[in-house]
Amino acid sequence: MDLNRAAEVPHVVIVGGGFGGLETAQRLRKSNVRVTLVDRHNYHLFQPLLYQVATGGLSPANIATPLRSIVRKQKNCEVILAEVTDFDITNQRLILRDGEVGYDYLVIAAGATHSYFGRDEWAPFAPGLKTIADAAEIRRRIYVAFEAAERESDNDLRKALLTFVVVGGGPTGVELAGALSEIARHTLKHDFRNIKPEEARIMVVEAAPHILAHYPEDLCQQAAEKVRGLGIEVHVHTKVTDITAEAVHLAGPDGDSVVATRTVLWGAGVQANPLGKQLAAALGMETDRAGHLSVTSTCLVAGQENIFAIGDIASFTSSDGKPLPGLAAVAMQQGQFVAKAITSLAQGDTIDGEFSYHDRGTMATIGRAVAVAQIGTRQFCGFFAWLLWLLVHLMLIVQFQNRALILVQWAWGYVTFNRSNRIITGEEPVNIVPLPSSVKASLLKEASPLKEGG
Amino acid sequence: MDLNRAAEVPHVVIVGGGFGGLETAQRLRKSNVRVTLVDRHNYHLFQPLLYQVATGGLSPANIATPLRSIVRKQKNCEVILAEVTDFDITNQRLILRDGEVGYDYLVIAAGATHSYFGRDEWAPFAPGLKTIADAAEIRRRIYVAFEAAERESDNDLRKALLTFVVVGGGPTGVELAGALSEIARHTLKHDFRNIKPEEARIMVVEAAPHILAHYPEDLCQQAAEKVRGLGIEVHVHTKVTDITAEAVHLAGPDGDSVVATRTVLWGAGVQANPLGKQLAAALGMETDRAGHLSVTSTCLVAGQENIFAIGDIASFTSSDGKPLPGLAAVAMQQGQFVAKAITSLAQGDTIDGEFSYHDRGTMATIGRAVAVAQIGTRQFCGFFAWLLWLLVHLMLIVQFQNRALILVQWAWGYVTFNRSNRIITGEEPVNIVPLPSSVKASLLKEASPLKEGG
Repeated sequence: MDLNRAAEVPHVVIVGGGFGGLETAQRLRKSNVRVTLVDRHNYHLFQPLLYQVATGGLSPANIATPLRSIVRKQKNCEVILAEVTDFDITNQRLILRDGEVGYDYLVIAAGATHSYFGRDEWAPFAPGLKTIADAAEIRRRIYVAFEAAERESDNDLRKALLTFVVVGGGPTGVELAGALSEIARHTLKHDFRNIKPEEARIMVVEAAPHILAHYPEDLCQQAAEKVRGLGIEVHVHTKVTDITAEAVHLAGPDGDSVVATRTVLWGAGVQANPLGKQLAAALGMETDRAGHLSVTSTCLVAGQENIFAIGDIASFTSSDGKPLPGLAAVAMQQGQFVAKAITSLAQGDTIDGEFSYHDRGTMATIGRAVAVAQIGTRQFCGFFAWLLWLLVHLMLIVQFQNRALILVQWAWGYVTFNRSNRIITGEEPVNIVPLPSSVKASLLKEASPLKEGG
Repeated sequence: MDLNRAAEVPHVVIVGGGFGGLETAQRLRKSNVRVTLVDRHNYHLFQPLLYQVATGGLSPANIATPLRSIVRKQKNCEVILAEVTDFDITNQRLILRDGEVGYDYLVIAAGATHSYFGRDEWAPFAPGLKTIADAAEIRRRIYVAFEAAERESDNDLRKALLTFVVVGGGPTGVELAGALSEIARHTLKHDFRNIKPEEARIMVVEAAPHILAHYPEDLCQQAAEKVRGLGIEVHVHTKVTDITAEAVHLAGPDGDSVVATRTVLWGAGVQANPLGKQLAAALGMETDRAGHLSVTSTCLVAGQENIFAIGDIASFTSSDGKPLPGLAAVAMQQGQFVAKAITSLAQGDTIDGEFSYHDRGTMATIGRAVAVAQIGTRQFCGFFAWLLWLLVHLMLIVQFQNRALILVQWAWGYVTFNRSNRIITGEEPVNIVPLPSSVKASLLKEASPLKEGG
């Protein structure tokens, strides 16, 4: 029975409902195939706005749309909520944590995760930003730091609590730092009685000579000026040598230094989803150092005829010999190509042509109403770039409702400097970034760290 | 120094930023006192709409407003994020998990939590609805149940996954059941391929002779008909005798029965926050069985001169000998009274008069555009009551932004039957309510619980 059903029409299994996987599924709408989209989450996450959730500007649901509702009308597409644990290449089966699923064509679009460059012990002190859980954790740390500072009587500890270090000067790092500056200088301005949030120290640390280094140099420099204009310290040519519960250790052009801080945010490295390594092992091949699957010019995993890899899990070398950047646009264009390729193969044809990426431009926000954008040879830095950024991102968000809601929320936030989503959630709302035991002991010795008298 | 500062102006410490505590703090705005509001969370939660978060209609931030932003302009009010662990009555100090705070007047407004009537072992199988974490967990269970049913090939297991039992026919239980019906019959209607969500079985189990038993009998009966009209089974005169991972055991008018289900929601019992018992112990007194503090006609804790208890943590007996119900309106009116009383005491006067509750009406939603309301001697059941309910609740929500956002979200949801917040979050998004090991073993025996062939 199973075999008969599979014989009816080719079965395409897509792993991952991100930009690449979803695009592939949707572009197979009219093809004579059966599509199964497998994801660990029941939603498509609009990652470019995740930093807004991490800083309390948007709710998770504003940027997460249920996958089922997106493909609701696509009758040849089924969605299953499941975790992929392994690959059975010989029998063309995907092994799930609680089941299996057979495939004729497999598309791996499982994305990327953070990389601490071999220093995984930093992870508890410097959360990265890839998932909704990450965003909620970062939001918790930011707002709890201000709360703890408000109650702290020790000057040095209070200063450490009000120091925020963002590691990595790429788009994510700069966006986080910009939002932090807005929180400190505007959103929380009148909220506290014992601290001045606007005195918070916000640092961006970048090993390269520039922040936003993917942009042309003069645009980088304009951007750096704008970032500094927001009261953010930009430390380029500076490497992070250690991160602990109490401090970040830096090695910069002026020598080594130690910055006491309780809030470090990681925006530095990414690596492919571990599924990449697992598939490679099943195929008896290797990934690159960052775990990317090596693919051919038709997005097929090297040496395979029915397994494609797209987006951040794959390393696609374009015709100029450079690897493509980890952008939503790349994943989506690859998804379109792969959908076409599978349609051809399913009809008994061969794949038509090779994939090539059309760069329609890139952009990143810096802060309140400031962004950088590069579109073709044109470059923008400032308010116009921000309007462009806003427009493009609103247009891209999948569902109408979210677009309208985000617009209302942003318009209101823009006028009032308010961030309505700055609620602290999580298991232990009053639990601050763990204090080292030495500090805890000294706290306990004092009768009362609060100012109130008996 | 501490003593001097405390001597300047009386210090009012309020425990809990719910309806009662927040109202007290705000009404002390113009009084010559210093106010400290202590809460474990950094937000005021609009609990009447929590069931909307639990069913994916609203985001947590829509109904949670940062306490700091509410009292931002009230210069005599400080907010601290802290957990109260004990009371030092002799020295007039509140013991926090990480500090202490002295008080001249103490207002306990810490609210209520669920009660499983001594069957705490039911808690993991039947979550209650009091906090944002509860709501996220209920939302996860509801949507994961549909996801698991979609992948389940065993008929009995699939039926159990699509059976939802709400224990308790009070407002919370009825609101949850009504929202569940809307989810199954409308929101998810076209989302699945292997199941028909509209065939989900939704039950409300109530030990009393009526659901919504606080309302007059004819209104109850109208309400029960409306609830049944939504396809919900209403079982009155029915007691829950056991809850396990697999089933709910019932004892009803037609004898005992066992309902196989994976999703049980607890809307039955509440008890006072454990802080009530703790304060009682510190004062050498007893609480009632549900942990309520006994208070005088001026909301003072019995035998005390400067400790007030209001809202769900207190048991206030009104002049007709009946205890007041656990409503936001009661807590708020008590907060107003206590603020006035403290202002008088702080001026060296005595408390003016006694507290009495003005019942301005109560209301509860049943489902899409249907509610019951009782306002004075007038009773409504249906669309008009729902409009009233909507209006009153929108007016009550503290912040303008949330009101506008909720209106947009509801208007859109009303037109489209959509619930945009049905994302599944939590540590293990694919982890379903744990299956009993016997079931798991049988699942593992099958080569594949999925239909796809190799």
